[in-house]
Amino acid sequence: MKPQALFLLPPGWNALGADSFSSAVYDALLEGRDRYAPEAIDYFVGFRPPPGFLKSLPKLKAVISLGAGVDGFLQDPDYPKAVPLVRSVDPNLAIQMGEYVVMHALMIHRHQRFFDAAQAEHQWRQRMLTRNAADIRVGILGLGTIGAHIAAKLQAFDFQTLGWSRSRKEAPGVKSFAGAGELPAFLSQCDILVCVLPLTPDTRGILNSALFAQLPQGAYVINVARGAHLIEADLIAALDSGHLAGAVLDVFQTEPLPPDSPIWRHPKITATPHIAGITEPRSALAYVEDCIRRAEAGQPLPNVVNVARGY
Amino acid sequence: MKPQALFLLPPGWNALGADSFSSAVYDALLEGRDRYAPEAIDYFVGFRPPPGFLKSLPKLKAVISLGAGVDGFLQDPDYPKAVPLVRSVDPNLAIQMGEYVVMHALMIHRHQRFFDAAQAEHQWRQRMLTRNAADIRVGILGLGTIGAHIAAKLQAFDFQTLGWSRSRKEAPGVKSFAGAGELPAFLSQCDILVCVLPLTPDTRGILNSALFAQLPQGAYVINVARGAHLIEADLIAALDSGHLAGAVLDVFQTEPLPPDSPIWRHPKITATPHIAGITEPRSALAYVEDCIRRAEAGQPLPNVVNVARGY
Repeated sequence: MKPQALFLLPPGWNALGADSFSSAVYDALLEGRDRYAPEAIDYFVGFRPPPGFLKSLPKLKAVISLGAGVDGFLQDPDYPKAVPLVRSVDPNLAIQMGEYVVMHALMIHRHQRFFDAAQAEHQWRQRMLTRNAADIRVGILGLGTIGAHIAAKLQAFDFQTLGWSRSRKEAPGVKSFAGAGELPAFLSQCDILVCVLPLTPDTRGILNSALFAQLPQGAYVINVARGAHLIEADLIAALDSGHLAGAVLDVFQTEPLPPDSPIWRHPKITATPHIAGITEPRSALAYVEDCIRRAEAGQPLPNVVNVARGY
Repeated sequence: MKPQALFLLPPGWNALGADSFSSAVYDALLEGRDRYAPEAIDYFVGFRPPPGFLKSLPKLKAVISLGAGVDGFLQDPDYPKAVPLVRSVDPNLAIQMGEYVVMHALMIHRHQRFFDAAQAEHQWRQRMLTRNAADIRVGILGLGTIGAHIAAKLQAFDFQTLGWSRSRKEAPGVKSFAGAGELPAFLSQCDILVCVLPLTPDTRGILNSALFAQLPQGAYVINVARGAHLIEADLIAALDSGHLAGAVLDVFQTEPLPPDSPIWRHPKITATPHIAGITEPRSALAYVEDCIRRAEAGQPLPNVVNVARGY
């Protein structure tokens, strides 16, 4: 008898046919579509179940997150702490994040928003580059797999790369900074700051007025991590004061970002609807199958989250 | 006595101090600023002199173009054909073109204009990627130094690259096509077509209805070469019929593009004011000095244009 895996999927996944979930390794049950006995569920697969939901599945062997961020699980006070939580590590996600960050770094470097505004006014406004990409320092907050991949892709365009992480990490060609003590030195050298941190109690609200003040005058901020990393009012104040030159936000305190949010209409902000790294269903489901196969064979699970530390 | 070099510069270069032109190798004279005797001028340096201008300099040893394209010189019926024409080969220009093309290829791939429109309406509209960059074929019309550099940078993001040139050229990782006979096969495989051709009688108007019809349904066109490569009305027709999905234009039949041009307001066109590859004055002047030093030493000049062929 195959183990039972319960899937709780966001609306975007509804387009997938039921066949997509069939597997030789497990029986798939879709929350909201299939009937199931909670005590018969062996594995839970999804993004962010409602608080208390996992507690209702008493026999869980593992929880598999479909996203790279697991804060949605860790914020559930009733998360069953004895059940291992597996974080999705989708190589495709790093690729997508790399595309998104390099594209926006190039748009900043190449004044694309200035040219967009000129086009909207039907005006021919040339503007020279004031510096080469090789003169622009891009700092990456969070130098894990995704951060290191982003740095490598930035280097393909000669951007200077530096990285900061809680504990010291190395990545090729990246000037590495670690811990709270080295954060000010790191920030003072970031012409563009990219946040790919995990969301933990330590990093919640880290993108705030005090941090922005340590960035060079005219710096840009790109947040592709979690909305809760950023104090949105502090960002708007730093943009309006002229200290920061612009921001690119893919994640928000409230998602979907409400139509009346000042972020949508701020002239120095590019806002996208949490699409920088889109979990690719086929790739994610292959990962889920691999995890369950391992667990059933008594092998260790990959990428298990330290629930106490939060990543 | 140093040779005399006459500079005819576009307005953007006026910001440069007179010091920028001082050289140990030549005496610089600026058209419109300095008095000079036409028969005393040894070298002409500039972008596109008015027709007949060069003819008025009877003792020219060489003409040095500050841009990669030399069509402005070749279109002068009075160009003194005995005088060698040197094309600027600025490594910085290829770097800039690579940045511009990859940025726009990523904006196409990542639906950035869709998200821009959603932001303008304050609407959260997610959209999945329908394919990976590795599934997108980018065809480069013109596989010279700049084309090969663009291809290498596209490959850093896993785009498939193919290239077409008049005579066969090879570049790493690029599927190569050559001559009129292979153009249809090339075009049929271009999801994004990038034009970096030199402007010659053969390539003038090459981006026309007949060519667009050979591209796959939903293809995109990026023109960073010369405005005269493109029949603008044909492009608009191909966009409006839905055969082409979009275009990015940096060059135009008339520059500056007039405010009433339909190109500015077309929803499927991104238009920028001829800034994809900006000749960097310092780098260009170093090149000029090197050319004149060689010529004065009796050494062969680099990158001399075949005036009959046009590049």
